[in-house]
Amino acid sequence: MDATVIAVGDELLIGKTVNNNAAYLSRRLAALGIATRRQLVVGDAEADIAAALDLARALTPLAITTGGLGPTEDDRTLAAVAKHLGLELVLHRPTLKEIERRFARRGVKMPAVNVGQARVPAGSHVLANPLGTAPGIVVEEAGFVLCLLPGVPAEMEYIFEHGLVPFLEKKGYVGERVYEKQLHATGLPESAVAEQLAGVVVPPGVHLAYLPQTAQVDLRIWGAAPNEETFRERAAPIAKTIREALGAHVFGEDGATLEQAVGEALHARGETLALAESCTGGLIAKRVTDVAGASSWFLGGVVPYANEAKVNLSGVAEATLATHGAVSDETAREMAEGARARLGTTYALAVTGVAGPTGGTSEKPVGTVCFALAEEGGTTSERLSFGGGRGWVRLRASQHALDMLRLHLHAKGEKR
Amino acid sequence: MDATVIAVGDELLIGKTVNNNAAYLSRRLAALGIATRRQLVVGDAEADIAAALDLARALTPLAITTGGLGPTEDDRTLAAVAKHLGLELVLHRPTLKEIERRFARRGVKMPAVNVGQARVPAGSHVLANPLGTAPGIVVEEAGFVLCLLPGVPAEMEYIFEHGLVPFLEKKGYVGERVYEKQLHATGLPESAVAEQLAGVVVPPGVHLAYLPQTAQVDLRIWGAAPNEETFRERAAPIAKTIREALGAHVFGEDGATLEQAVGEALHARGETLALAESCTGGLIAKRVTDVAGASSWFLGGVVPYANEAKVNLSGVAEATLATHGAVSDETAREMAEGARARLGTTYALAVTGVAGPTGGTSEKPVGTVCFALAEEGGTTSERLSFGGGRGWVRLRASQHALDMLRLHLHAKGEKR
Repeated sequence: MDATVIAVGDELLIGKTVNNNAAYLSRRLAALGIATRRQLVVGDAEADIAAALDLARALTPLAITTGGLGPTEDDRTLAAVAKHLGLELVLHRPTLKEIERRFARRGVKMPAVNVGQARVPAGSHVLANPLGTAPGIVVEEAGFVLCLLPGVPAEMEYIFEHGLVPFLEKKGYVGERVYEKQLHATGLPESAVAEQLAGVVVPPGVHLAYLPQTAQVDLRIWGAAPNEETFRERAAPIAKTIREALGAHVFGEDGATLEQAVGEALHARGETLALAESCTGGLIAKRVTDVAGASSWFLGGVVPYANEAKVNLSGVAEATLATHGAVSDETAREMAEGARARLGTTYALAVTGVAGPTGGTSEKPVGTVCFALAEEGGTTSERLSFGGGRGWVRLRASQHALDMLRLHLHAKGEKR
Repeated sequence: MDATVIAVGDELLIGKTVNNNAAYLSRRLAALGIATRRQLVVGDAEADIAAALDLARALTPLAITTGGLGPTEDDRTLAAVAKHLGLELVLHRPTLKEIERRFARRGVKMPAVNVGQARVPAGSHVLANPLGTAPGIVVEEAGFVLCLLPGVPAEMEYIFEHGLVPFLEKKGYVGERVYEKQLHATGLPESAVAEQLAGVVVPPGVHLAYLPQTAQVDLRIWGAAPNEETFRERAAPIAKTIREALGAHVFGEDGATLEQAVGEALHARGETLALAESCTGGLIAKRVTDVAGASSWFLGGVVPYANEAKVNLSGVAEATLATHGAVSDETAREMAEGARARLGTTYALAVTGVAGPTGGTSEKPVGTVCFALAEEGGTTSERLSFGGGRGWVRLRASQHALDMLRLHLHAKGEKR
């Protein structure tokens, strides 16, 4: 079963409103085994709504519209549908009674315009809307099923779940449900992930998609299955293959964040972390403390932004700053060691760099970032160069620092 | 000038991704006097992309696609466009060089698949993408202008603003622009803002909209005008009225952030700031260092997450923690004073609270946050209670702390 999702509204076409309704409908339809072939957005004009209906009818046996069912002049969906399908609008008495009751409950006289919301195409099926005045409407005509839902998200969702899903189930339009499993990888660009997975065979019944995010790539395995267990069985071999191909680059599954992965590894080992952040300026600490329960493994951090703060807060020697500069492996190492000593943690991560837009030199251009990881056995450091603006440099630096620790913990775990 | 916006991607049709790109493009096009007639979403299949191109071509002289330009097998936009328009794909050497440079900078060998991203339809105009590997591409054919942009939002936005807008301007496709002026207010809920502005008269030629954001309300004054000066003249009286009605709650204009407002006030006064953050865990430092040039007024901060860190990093007395607890006015005050002494700044802000989801007590439930602001003359503290989950409590606490300092500086400025 395929569907077309049509959102009606000028506010979508001027970009004032994001089309969350279409995403909701497509996501829920997919889970019911109904594939969305197209999403369309048209303005509040009868001709445009009619054009969308034509397109949908030629393409899919099912179409769902959202929006344009309100009581005002610019709500044209119902009129367009009636005219387009050559159906008369007739008064639906139970709906009129319901609308009257809503106004009575608020002690307000029903405005005359609201009567129009109780008019539905002759022969249609009405889906109750306890949250507002516009009901959902289903019109069936020569094998084409057209469902009209209001545009207010809460009303649309309610009618979809409580009216439309039971209707589609009764009609036998609901197919095999779609399940998914995600693997999250970092430290490799999308193209390198694709290259590593070039030979991977996707087994029948499941699909594989690459979803590149900022500083990570999500691998989505998905497919329709009669039940979740069957899907899991089908997805397991490809998930295993991906994990083998990408190795330690895979840091988590099904929505886990890199900071959660770091936290889980530290928590499992009973170890703790301190931070010393200059160019990321608290971003790593913010990410780490986004994780509920971080206090069991994160003791604290310092943000030594000014040079004097690098000395006072994280114990960098003034001579180190004078000889090597604030952005140097040496300063990063002393920052990490100083933070670790002050907080008494197992590990400390330090970041110092040139986030930009100014402050770059020919030797250390904008995007240059030095990292250090300190622990009892010693300190390691790295120096990288990131492209993009200030925000990107900071985000990528925070990702790299967290991943540096995660990979270190991973390697330690392998050795044991 | 009318346009069609086409988003390409299976992830949109399964509802995994919300079509923010279409909203962005339509909003920006509207500001350029270009009306979006349709938004279309199709999957990663050549036939579907071709069908969308047909539809766009029949409807509008301009179409913009987003998505499907990546290096992997499921990126089909370029192939579909070339086949559909009967154009050969040819190697664009400057783009190939740029992609090679990106990989070289990261010390990574360029995977062979990325060469494909440097192939463009013969005769097309290439728009540089410094944030990623896929460039923007403009194809002009028999009066139809087709622009291909990548799907990663930051890359799409960059190319739109820096490549496509100048191109459209040069071609004379830009109409009477819509201008806007925004005022940003914080410390008042939307309903209170609306109440304060109840009697305000909006002059002809401009419109006023309330855009509630997390922890702030944006007031948007907008309208089409022949030029910016005319719009400014039309908007000035209503902007003045709003400023008078909301007073010090208005912290900035036209996208300025609260952290920028704080930074500007400190910079103008030649004063400096230190931070001590427990429950916000680095979020305020992150926001403050989002501001380019923050180093002239932000010296550094501490994130004393564990109790021992509150003692070691920010000088809270053990007796204070034992008597009043980590979440108390007393601890907040000592954190602020400790951070200020260590960093030698004019001011220090401190935040300690229960962000949740656990850790609440009947006396200090989840959402309880204590704030302190230390300066030479003394320290003030406040205790508030925020609703919402962990993320909301942290965000609102960061907003309140920054606003506490901003209002203090504002009051000091008035007194002078």
